[in-house]
Amino acid sequence: MKTTIKELLSDYKKLIHHDITIQGWARAFRSNRFIALNDGSTIENLQIVVDFENIPEDILKNISVASSLKITGELVESQGAGQSIEIIAKKVEILGDNFTEERDKTILQPKRHTLEILREQAHLRMRTNLFSSVFRVRHAVSFAIHQFFNQNQFFYINTPIITGADAEGAGEMFGVTNFDLNNIPKNDDGEINYDEDFFGKKTNLTVSGQLSVETAMMGLGRVYTFGPTFRAENSNTTRHLAEFWMVEPEVAFNNLEANIDLAEDFLKYIITYVLENCKEDLKSLDERFAAEQKAKPEKDRAKEGLIEKLENVISKRFKRVSYTEAIDILMNSKENKKGKFKFPITEWGADLQSEHERFLVEKHFESPVVLFDYPKDIKAFYMRLNEDGKTVAAMDVLFPGIGEIIGGSQREERYQVLKDKMEIMGVDEEELWWYMDTRKFGSVPHAGFGLGLERLVLFVTGMSNIRDVIPFPRTPKNAEF
Amino acid sequence: MKTTIKELLSDYKKLIHHDITIQGWARAFRSNRFIALNDGSTIENLQIVVDFENIPEDILKNISVASSLKITGELVESQGAGQSIEIIAKKVEILGDNFTEERDKTILQPKRHTLEILREQAHLRMRTNLFSSVFRVRHAVSFAIHQFFNQNQFFYINTPIITGADAEGAGEMFGVTNFDLNNIPKNDDGEINYDEDFFGKKTNLTVSGQLSVETAMMGLGRVYTFGPTFRAENSNTTRHLAEFWMVEPEVAFNNLEANIDLAEDFLKYIITYVLENCKEDLKSLDERFAAEQKAKPEKDRAKEGLIEKLENVISKRFKRVSYTEAIDILMNSKENKKGKFKFPITEWGADLQSEHERFLVEKHFESPVVLFDYPKDIKAFYMRLNEDGKTVAAMDVLFPGIGEIIGGSQREERYQVLKDKMEIMGVDEEELWWYMDTRKFGSVPHAGFGLGLERLVLFVTGMSNIRDVIPFPRTPKNAEF
Repeated sequence: MKTTIKELLSDYKKLIHHDITIQGWARAFRSNRFIALNDGSTIENLQIVVDFENIPEDILKNISVASSLKITGELVESQGAGQSIEIIAKKVEILGDNFTEERDKTILQPKRHTLEILREQAHLRMRTNLFSSVFRVRHAVSFAIHQFFNQNQFFYINTPIITGADAEGAGEMFGVTNFDLNNIPKNDDGEINYDEDFFGKKTNLTVSGQLSVETAMMGLGRVYTFGPTFRAENSNTTRHLAEFWMVEPEVAFNNLEANIDLAEDFLKYIITYVLENCKEDLKSLDERFAAEQKAKPEKDRAKEGLIEKLENVISKRFKRVSYTEAIDILMNSKENKKGKFKFPITEWGADLQSEHERFLVEKHFESPVVLFDYPKDIKAFYMRLNEDGKTVAAMDVLFPGIGEIIGGSQREERYQVLKDKMEIMGVDEEELWWYMDTRKFGSVPHAGFGLGLERLVLFVTGMSNIRDVIPFPRTPKNAEF
Repeated sequence: MKTTIKELLSDYKKLIHHDITIQGWARAFRSNRFIALNDGSTIENLQIVVDFENIPEDILKNISVASSLKITGELVESQGAGQSIEIIAKKVEILGDNFTEERDKTILQPKRHTLEILREQAHLRMRTNLFSSVFRVRHAVSFAIHQFFNQNQFFYINTPIITGADAEGAGEMFGVTNFDLNNIPKNDDGEINYDEDFFGKKTNLTVSGQLSVETAMMGLGRVYTFGPTFRAENSNTTRHLAEFWMVEPEVAFNNLEANIDLAEDFLKYIITYVLENCKEDLKSLDERFAAEQKAKPEKDRAKEGLIEKLENVISKRFKRVSYTEAIDILMNSKENKKGKFKFPITEWGADLQSEHERFLVEKHFESPVVLFDYPKDIKAFYMRLNEDGKTVAAMDVLFPGIGEIIGGSQREERYQVLKDKMEIMGVDEEELWWYMDTRKFGSVPHAGFGLGLERLVLFVTGMSNIRDVIPFPRTPKNAEF
């Protein structure tokens, strides 16, 4: 494979005074002499020095921002500040079209653009410094996830995207169909005849791979699913996507405590990986974050810088607090007593809102917090009933600035307890006959959790709108590109 | 994390004569004395020796195939053949329910089952030796893919699953909708009012991430997408799925030759990785494959064993042959002249069928083959037109026993050539305005390819039905689980 600018910048000693050829895009062209060349491998540019006496004029005058270039020249140590090396161009070739007039109507023109405008041109924004950094970091996060699990003997299981089940209850589902919507086949009694649809039944896009991956756990022990999930909720916020990527590990023989240990190790592994492998991108994102904070009123500013925040998260043991303790803390807090919460905490059993989670993490403990043992009535049917008969072995990991980043539980492995719970909560046992089978034949204690990839990428990059950390966001009324 | 059986078997010296605790499922219980315990980490079982004098009778009589057990006992070197170590049980605990009567109606009962029956109980088949091996190998293949790309400075890009485009032309698409199908909103003129659907337009499930990932290539240089793709084709064969996983790299500045090099390196990397990391599973799959071949009439048997085939593929340089040469070879072959092909080759321009591909790979060259420079009329609009004006820079990698495993091309990066081609082929340029932009602003030569994950897993595991290498297959009239 060809040498990238990243490789060149990190290991150039042996090439000094040699001729090399390099390709990329011009990010800037100053004084008709200095080209900042970028090839996407790193946020750093390679400086190209062109001499108008050497390079034909018709080429020089066609070089502009976004031009694609192939440069051959001598690699030398740079005299100028800001770069270690540069190339004295001997030959410059323009590789392809660059319609500069049209370009100047896009975000590729050389000036600043708002994040909103960049979002509208999602197909071009990966060509900016900011978004190339965000997506290189997103890559590093994804790779770290696979590497963590592989090293810990987990097996990657692709759970189905199209599902016939709609009992999972995690949210509103999109329908998937092969019907001609102008001509939907009906039965004699006027009902839709799903027998004639592609799958011979009503199908939806998955909201979670958990129930499927639990069946794999029974055979392979440690498994995880990592794929797209979907919610058809009409939420137009900076935290919701209709299509997002979710990681869901599931581990045989783990109890709630082992599950919390796994979640903590997992998050710290990923953040450490990014700190070690994305130094230049994080430095740039850290500067952007600092500038953004500075523009805010002082009371709204983040207490920590981006990199500082990441380093703090990996250095501390997450604070583990039961739901019951958390309710005590919240109920007795000045904030609650003075009516500062939009949703005052008045009794045990209340569902926690984002404001409560952030109070615990950012004000009370000043640390990532793991809450556990929630009231059974506010949690899903598959969570394991504790001995007190009123809480379940659920856990949420709460992060500064972002709230819940992981939600999980030890699962109810006792067939009869699960069956009773489903009946009370109105979950259709017949539809989930295959899930019930996992509790019938050698059932084992097990636990797992879910992590929304984009939430974690938001946290790691310091971006604030979830639409800015996925290449092509899908939201209500928006499926462009 | 707890010690797995895989770890224990590979590193037990320091634990000999120590007491250890291990959990898993009974795969067999012989002579009321020997339990073969499996925890999914490896195909190998750990032998547990129980002494009816030590273990309460009510526990002993409840141990059967599929029981979940927690065993504490002394680790000793085994005297028996077939295992290096065993555990002399001091304590045996049954972890969860095992309804043996119901179990005996499932594939978990201790006898042989056909692949068809196993498929009908996909939620249980990962508990068999065969399918746990298949899915551990599938994991290794996926991980090797991510690792190969990460090591070579590619960035993982999640292209959208729900798409508003339907111009990609790779196949029939599934519709995605939030409409109540009993009450679809219509305009005054009786047409469906897609403005009122979730995304405000008609949307489908993606058939390929290529066009989207090309936009990312323009910013990040080397990228790949790896996610689920969908085809709503009514193909009930052993080679087709409605939902499958596809890997699509795209590389700036690569021409067709570099693209072929990448494909060859990539496939060899993955196969080498699996040979090195899945030894026990491959050994077992190799034996299954051999037994299957033996049951066939001699003329239909594979020439090579499974492992032998994998080793041969990585040891040879793939044979590179132009389409035009291939047509010559086929046209002049004995098979063609004697009318042995179902589709006789009579002229240049013919599309190659599976029988022709397999003739080239298995009979003529006895090697993986890369065909390139296909007639433009039988290939997609985005492939680069060669100087001859009649072929495009397309490539297919053909493997023994399986035919096409990779298809790719250098892309048409010249704006006007692409535009003309789209007009001739009837591809809607307006719908793909964002794709056209990649050719307007600093367009570069680039190339990429697509690999169907399940095809490769079929090849590596020696399985013959694609439904047996994905956990929960989606096919016409089937979206169970």
